[in-house]
Amino acid sequence: MIIDVHGHMSAPDAYYAWKASLLSHRGAHGGKPPAISDDALAASYHHPHPSFGNTSHLAHIDGAGIDLQLISPRPFQMMHSERPAKLVQWFTEETNNLIHRATELFPGRFKGVAGLPQSPDLTPREWTGELRRTVTELGFVGAMLNTDPHEGTETPPALGDRYWYPVYETLCELDVPVLLHAAGCKPPAREPYSLHFIQEETVAVWSLVNSGVLKDFPDLKIIVSHGGGAIPYQVGRFLPSVVRTGVSYLDKLRRLHFDSCLYTRDSLELLMKVVGTDRVLFGSEKPGTGSQIDPETGRWFDDIHLLIDDIEWLGDERRADVLENNARALFRL
Amino acid sequence: MIIDVHGHMSAPDAYYAWKASLLSHRGAHGGKPPAISDDALAASYHHPHPSFGNTSHLAHIDGAGIDLQLISPRPFQMMHSERPAKLVQWFTEETNNLIHRATELFPGRFKGVAGLPQSPDLTPREWTGELRRTVTELGFVGAMLNTDPHEGTETPPALGDRYWYPVYETLCELDVPVLLHAAGCKPPAREPYSLHFIQEETVAVWSLVNSGVLKDFPDLKIIVSHGGGAIPYQVGRFLPSVVRTGVSYLDKLRRLHFDSCLYTRDSLELLMKVVGTDRVLFGSEKPGTGSQIDPETGRWFDDIHLLIDDIEWLGDERRADVLENNARALFRL
Amino acid sequence: MIIDVHGHMSAPDAYYAWKASLLSHRGAHGGKPPAISDDALAASYHHPHPSFGNTSHLAHIDGAGIDLQLISPRPFQMMHSERPAKLVQWFTEETNNLIHRATELFPGRFKGVAGLPQSPDLTPREWTGELRRTVTELGFVGAMLNTDPHEGTETPPALGDRYWYPVYETLCELDVPVLLHAAGCKPPAREPYSLHFIQEETVAVWSLVNSGVLKDFPDLKIIVSHGGGAIPYQVGRFLPSVVRTGVSYLDKLRRLHFDSCLYTRDSLELLMKVVGTDRVLFGSEKPGTGSQIDPETGRWFDDIHLLIDDIEWLGDERRADVLENNARALFRL
Amino acid sequence: MIIDVHGHMSAPDAYYAWKASLLSHRGAHGGKPPAISDDALAASYHHPHPSFGNTSHLAHIDGAGIDLQLISPRPFQMMHSERPAKLVQWFTEETNNLIHRATELFPGRFKGVAGLPQSPDLTPREWTGELRRTVTELGFVGAMLNTDPHEGTETPPALGDRYWYPVYETLCELDVPVLLHAAGCKPPAREPYSLHFIQEETVAVWSLVNSGVLKDFPDLKIIVSHGGGAIPYQVGRFLPSVVRTGVSYLDKLRRLHFDSCLYTRDSLELLMKVVGTDRVLFGSEKPGTGSQIDPETGRWFDDIHLLIDDIEWLGDERRADVLENNARALFRL
Amino acid sequence: MIIDVHGHMSAPDAYYAWKASLLSHRGAHGGKPPAISDDALAASYHHPHPSFGNTSHLAHIDGAGIDLQLISPRPFQMMHSERPAKLVQWFTEETNNLIHRATELFPGRFKGVAGLPQSPDLTPREWTGELRRTVTELGFVGAMLNTDPHEGTETPPALGDRYWYPVYETLCELDVPVLLHAAGCKPPAREPYSLHFIQEETVAVWSLVNSGVLKDFPDLKIIVSHGGGAIPYQVGRFLPSVVRTGVSYLDKLRRLHFDSCLYTRDSLELLMKVVGTDRVLFGSEKPGTGSQIDPETGRWFDDIHLLIDDIEWLGDERRADVLENNARALFRL
Amino acid sequence: MIIDVHGHMSAPDAYYAWKASLLSHRGAHGGKPPAISDDALAASYHHPHPSFGNTSHLAHIDGAGIDLQLISPRPFQMMHSERPAKLVQWFTEETNNLIHRATELFPGRFKGVAGLPQSPDLTPREWTGELRRTVTELGFVGAMLNTDPHEGTETPPALGDRYWYPVYETLCELDVPVLLHAAGCKPPAREPYSLHFIQEETVAVWSLVNSGVLKDFPDLKIIVSHGGGAIPYQVGRFLPSVVRTGVSYLDKLRRLHFDSCLYTRDSLELLMKVVGTDRVLFGSEKPGTGSQIDPETGRWFDDIHLLIDDIEWLGDERRADVLENNARALFRL
Repeated sequence: MIIDVHGHMSAPDAYYAWKASLLSHRGAHGGKPPAISDDALAASYHHPHPSFGNTSHLAHIDGAGIDLQLISPRPFQMMHSERPAKLVQWFTEETNNLIHRATELFPGRFKGVAGLPQSPDLTPREWTGELRRTVTELGFVGAMLNTDPHEGTETPPALGDRYWYPVYETLCELDVPVLLHAAGCKPPAREPYSLHFIQEETVAVWSLVNSGVLKDFPDLKIIVSHGGGAIPYQVGRFLPSVVRTGVSYLDKLRRLHFDSCLYTRDSLELLMKVVGTDRVLFGSEKPGTGSQIDPETGRWFDDIHLLIDDIEWLGDERRADVLENNARALFRL
Repeated sequence: MIIDVHGHMSAPDAYYAWKASLLSHRGAHGGKPPAISDDALAASYHHPHPSFGNTSHLAHIDGAGIDLQLISPRPFQMMHSERPAKLVQWFTEETNNLIHRATELFPGRFKGVAGLPQSPDLTPREWTGELRRTVTELGFVGAMLNTDPHEGTETPPALGDRYWYPVYETLCELDVPVLLHAAGCKPPAREPYSLHFIQEETVAVWSLVNSGVLKDFPDLKIIVSHGGGAIPYQVGRFLPSVVRTGVSYLDKLRRLHFDSCLYTRDSLELLMKVVGTDRVLFGSEKPGTGSQIDPETGRWFDDIHLLIDDIEWLGDERRADVLENNARALFRL
Repeated sequence: MIIDVHGHMSAPDAYYAWKASLLSHRGAHGGKPPAISDDALAASYHHPHPSFGNTSHLAHIDGAGIDLQLISPRPFQMMHSERPAKLVQWFTEETNNLIHRATELFPGRFKGVAGLPQSPDLTPREWTGELRRTVTELGFVGAMLNTDPHEGTETPPALGDRYWYPVYETLCELDVPVLLHAAGCKPPAREPYSLHFIQEETVAVWSLVNSGVLKDFPDLKIIVSHGGGAIPYQVGRFLPSVVRTGVSYLDKLRRLHFDSCLYTRDSLELLMKVVGTDRVLFGSEKPGTGSQIDPETGRWFDDIHLLIDDIEWLGDERRADVLENNARALFRL
Repeated sequence: MIIDVHGHMSAPDAYYAWKASLLSHRGAHGGKPPAISDDALAASYHHPHPSFGNTSHLAHIDGAGIDLQLISPRPFQMMHSERPAKLVQWFTEETNNLIHRATELFPGRFKGVAGLPQSPDLTPREWTGELRRTVTELGFVGAMLNTDPHEGTETPPALGDRYWYPVYETLCELDVPVLLHAAGCKPPAREPYSLHFIQEETVAVWSLVNSGVLKDFPDLKIIVSHGGGAIPYQVGRFLPSVVRTGVSYLDKLRRLHFDSCLYTRDSLELLMKVVGTDRVLFGSEKPGTGSQIDPETGRWFDDIHLLIDDIEWLGDERRADVLENNARALFRL
Repeated sequence: MIIDVHGHMSAPDAYYAWKASLLSHRGAHGGKPPAISDDALAASYHHPHPSFGNTSHLAHIDGAGIDLQLISPRPFQMMHSERPAKLVQWFTEETNNLIHRATELFPGRFKGVAGLPQSPDLTPREWTGELRRTVTELGFVGAMLNTDPHEGTETPPALGDRYWYPVYETLCELDVPVLLHAAGCKPPAREPYSLHFIQEETVAVWSLVNSGVLKDFPDLKIIVSHGGGAIPYQVGRFLPSVVRTGVSYLDKLRRLHFDSCLYTRDSLELLMKVVGTDRVLFGSEKPGTGSQIDPETGRWFDDIHLLIDDIEWLGDERRADVLENNARALFRL
Repeated sequence: MIIDVHGHMSAPDAYYAWKASLLSHRGAHGGKPPAISDDALAASYHHPHPSFGNTSHLAHIDGAGIDLQLISPRPFQMMHSERPAKLVQWFTEETNNLIHRATELFPGRFKGVAGLPQSPDLTPREWTGELRRTVTELGFVGAMLNTDPHEGTETPPALGDRYWYPVYETLCELDVPVLLHAAGCKPPAREPYSLHFIQEETVAVWSLVNSGVLKDFPDLKIIVSHGGGAIPYQVGRFLPSVVRTGVSYLDKLRRLHFDSCLYTRDSLELLMKVVGTDRVLFGSEKPGTGSQIDPETGRWFDDIHLLIDDIEWLGDERRADVLENNARALFRL
């Protein structure tokens, strides 16, 4: 069985057209979302999508043998930095509602991971209302946290800063894991959103490991997306700190979890060697950036399960941990 | 016959979903617009629209007896202030292309009025490339000019400033009129976009009349949307200037044209009395803000032709001027 | 009898020279106002003024048959945005004192309407001290409120924002009406102060009607200057909201009062038709912007009482309401 | 005979009231100055002034035996930092015109020293037009230069910066001296304008001596107001530089001239000892800050000629240099 | 006996190299200072220094007959404006520790005057922790206060502002004097740090005398460095205020103390005449800016004791007050 | 034979103390560097250093069998963002001079790689003067380029921007490679300088590969430090672009070179597999961040040559390419 902890919702054009409308009227038309029928919503999962190799969401995950996918909002669409803040509030709530409806339309196939209304004009405490609603009322199993609510327009506090503590407190109280995943990226930042994810994950891991967060919240369950940004590859830079602190950097790093959302076998092997197979959770982001056929191999670039299958030294037990057991334990599935 | 100089395009959800996508990836996915079939595009004119009283674009203008409508982009969706500037360039070009396709799908019903890629990060000279393209290659008959490319986030130069001269020069060279019409409005501005239009028109008229523009460009043909903002109503404030300057304010004001896009008969009468029936062009903005049924009268609020019909003192000739002849002359239709 | 709710003080040059001095020494010379004798002060009302058609303040109001004029500070001179804040405090207090002295010098001819020390560096709560002083100690009958204390240099909170509530509370507690009237207008704003008034009134009405203020302060008595900016003319844009909200826009609009400070008969008629003659208070702003002789008619542009007289359909009773009774009731005169 | 190089104009209230008006309408009423009759202007020199010990301008200089006074604008009223720039242009031109009229109303008593329209929004090259006009058309003998056109709101380039070279070039071309004298001082600067003068003079001397200006403009004639700010007193700090550069600091300092506008004998003596009596020009700033009677001595604080008379070691020749000859030579009087 | 209240610490290169390192890693390497042996520290006082005429700290003060020197941090090295604030905290603490070690290495020769961690990102209340530590734990006898923690990059509150009150309160509670002395000066400020000291002292005296500080803290003991900036020389400007306030400016000025850190006899005489010999404390800043041999006199420029000896009118008693007794009383030595 | 392309200079404390002094006086003391004798300079290479495991620079590279090391400035000390720009100019020149002296003091052991005076207040064209000087006059073989001259305080243009073209042109003209290596990192950036290097390399590779630089400068030789930041590990994200562009991402990536400055064998293997052994140059950064003994292995963390030796599949030929031949060819050694 395969559990995919890193999937994102699908939705019909009407949802995105509504977003465009919100960004145009900036609240003047109110926050009422468009009427999207169950059929229209289901079709967005059934219907082949031109961005994803003309293949549907369901065909993608079926093809990869994914039995259960945890779906969160499409991060790059979250628009946390847009003003006024009520746009973010409205859009996030409806997004979570659509995720919830998808979990009900396809029973057993999906579980919800909540987006939060992370407007920088709201406080982190205010964000947690939606976290609480989705977990307690909609049955969501976790949340996604954007480490840069400014989306590239300003420098936010690092994750080790007490600014974020209200979120950590609520996550612990609700006992759900959080997936670190940045959202959009605007000028003046230089990088596209996809690279911004990596940059943000790199800083996030650094800040968490070098702060008091993991000590102040011993039960906090954090999953870093995309295999942890640059950290597992660059981990050597941090190892000498043991001489100064007497504490192994790797021991601290392994307090975090990482998803497997990397599209090359070498990188997956590196990740597992550095953080250990018990800290890696299968995540495919299917359908997404990697949902194209590799002309050389004929495989989907994001057929990460095939790459994992190819790693012989892994063995069945640890492979099952990565593909299923680690997620099951962390999310209490 | 009725010619409506103030109509805006219709488009399917896919177009707006693409806009939402542009605002999310900020250029990372490139500028290729979505494939929109002729059928889908036509349907957006044929199909009843929930925002517009569940009535289609064509039904609206047919119902009002509008024979020819000049259509421009939906202003509040134009997103001139968004960065990077190439988003604005891409979106404006495709918007004009869709307008052009609509004029071809419905021969004789529509003429195009161009949107310009008014990113504040581009120069007004750079905006004029699209003006030239639409007029010389796509047969557009005029352009729409947003007086506030910052969309409420900063104060732009007033229309009397030389900043705008490259646009005026190109309009004169191509010999096409321009419709002044603001676009979106974002915080920190206090007003919704719909009121921002009015505020911008008010400042625009003031600045044009009090600057050297009308002298420097004697052939410039300017139409002020929505009946000229506050000016015709507040015109008394400006009349005393004759004592100081020796020039009648009304004479200067009548160098401009005004559309009839006001939804009350009293206001229409005021407009015509102040600027003269030879300076008023029929504009309905149908379907748009006013496309709701007035529960008291049973009329559409934006049935401006009915209001004009109700003005008895107007007489047939002047009524025909407003409804058709003024537009025909100004746009050389 | 005519009561004019919109008049502004007159003052001798020494008062303005003091203002120039304050703006030069910025507080270094302290806040002591110049000694202005009763004779000098009275002369500023008796003496013909070159800006006002070489006619005196008293001759102007006598000529118009104004029996009682409510006088407030000259708004464009109020300099609310100047720093440090104590300049604003000093200047406002002395201005109100001079108004008070005028009411005593000409018993029965004038009543005071207070300026407030609306420095953006003070809180609205701090502004209310002067409101209380003028009403309780100097017998003022109302206050003037500048909706843009930044005078065009930044965007202030809209009138619907809780920022303004301390002022509303004090107005209600003292049971006096407030005249909305902007003050100066500086770059980067594009418009002159006179047009800024109109723009500010337009936003003010929009914000009040669309906020909770009128509900939270059912006894608040608001008069919008200059006939309400653009709103009565553009009112059609707002009528369709009834379809969405079920509440008539006009009903909400008529919670406010409007002065008659418009210089054309057509506009006055429009105003009365839109808001009703019970919501219009005679205001002439005499002597002021309109105090020039119209070369065509030989009338003063601001002879608004003549325009009102010309409106035949008004009838004697409603004319008396506008000219006297509405003001008498609202101000408890 | 006494020549006073540091006097400032007098003017009637109407002039200051006009300034207040400019700052209120910001150009909306145009730049036409008020009509000030010769009588009114003359009275401002003849009339006792409450700020200056209830003594008139002429009585002050007569009492001090000043035969010829060079008068410049009142610096703290110059408002160089106000926007838009045309206010500064208008006000400076009229100010210089009034100075010119005073030189003609009182033949032989006054010579003009020009104010420049030093708006930071104009270029120094643009400022020089007024310098040229006043010298070539109005017979002015020098100019005053404000070293801080931002008046405390931003840090300007120091006087050694090439920013100022267009002014230096024009001064040399016209062969007239310049009096360094700051103008207003606004928040966020901490000091009142009077202390700002001192601070600016201190930086000015430092920058001039440590830059290439005196080498690039060997004929430039600079007078530093108020005895050179802090420099003569603090000169010891700069003497050790001779060890590093081989050039005596005092030799460089003595390239500049200084006025005697200090109100204590000890300071005057210090100044003369440090810079030499050949570099000191009599300047009284009468009537001005010091125009009060010292209750202890019964003298006017600004009776600087008396302080100079008290310095016995000075001797008649050097006293005459300070009181007359140095000015005569520098200004070619 | 001579007590010098204005001396600054010496330190080996390793201390400065550590500072350079802090400014490079910005905290990433932690705040551990370098190991500096007693020998190395002592050598920095014994070893001739190229910046100070190739003469050692001890040789300098021995040569001048200074028996006891109060040493504070080298102000221009204090880097209060650097970020993050912890750099300032670390560097200040270690600086004070090195001062303390010097007082112990050379018993009887030095007493400590504390630097404070004046980061603008910390509150003045937070600065006082180090003041308390140094006085109560390390036996320091006073503190140095930088009046511009932004070091020229922004305008700080003036010393009369309540912002500074927590420092004043702690000084009074600990009953120790404070030496006003600015630190570094960065662009956009125009002046070098050495002149910035003078500018800051000038504003500081003005603000203290014109505020309520001296009344609110009657026991506050303030010493202004470098002879009080410009004030004693420019004191005449302030004398006329007696006419307005009835209080002698000199009486207020003499509430402060001043050090003798001026390098010319004329200036020293001026200082003593203006503030009185009971308010002047010997301060040499040796070794420092003035530690060069004057090629004309063969004296060190900073041999201030020789200049004082040269002042004949001073007499032995007052000379002893300046050189020793005033300091002894103020610091309770 | 081993050639190390990534070494940084050593220097005595006097050099760093000078830097601290520059940052304190901001140019007031001029730019003259301290006298550093050959003995002192040599000692900084011979002397054990506490930050580097109490082992000297030479002992480190001798121990690693490094025959020739290319040395550049210590990046985190470069202070490109400090103002005024002349500090950067002075410090960079002296830094390069010290590198040059080291190459002469230890003939055959070192070659120089130049730092550039990358003040954001200078133009890239101005930076190239020092590049030209070091290559043509001092025999340097390449340059180091900081991709973020603002050092974390603002977002710079990405490397694909034409802003950088003057540097690329000069590199091509001089035919020398450039090592991309960021410098310091200040607030508000969240990461320490060491992680900033990685972030900057990640963005740099992305920008170069996605821009026209490699096409516009076909001969440009670029080495990315620290194994290319996150890119080789995250390369899978970019592979699908082949579907859209038809060009293999890996082919483009392999236009760049990468150093081996990673401290784990797994990462080194990943790098070589992704970019090919012909694109990897040995770089150790010895002595530096990794110069600590690993308590588990007893090896220095930065004994990268041992890690490379451990990679069996590499074979002798490719190992020699990485250790020597690739550098020899690229730098024409």
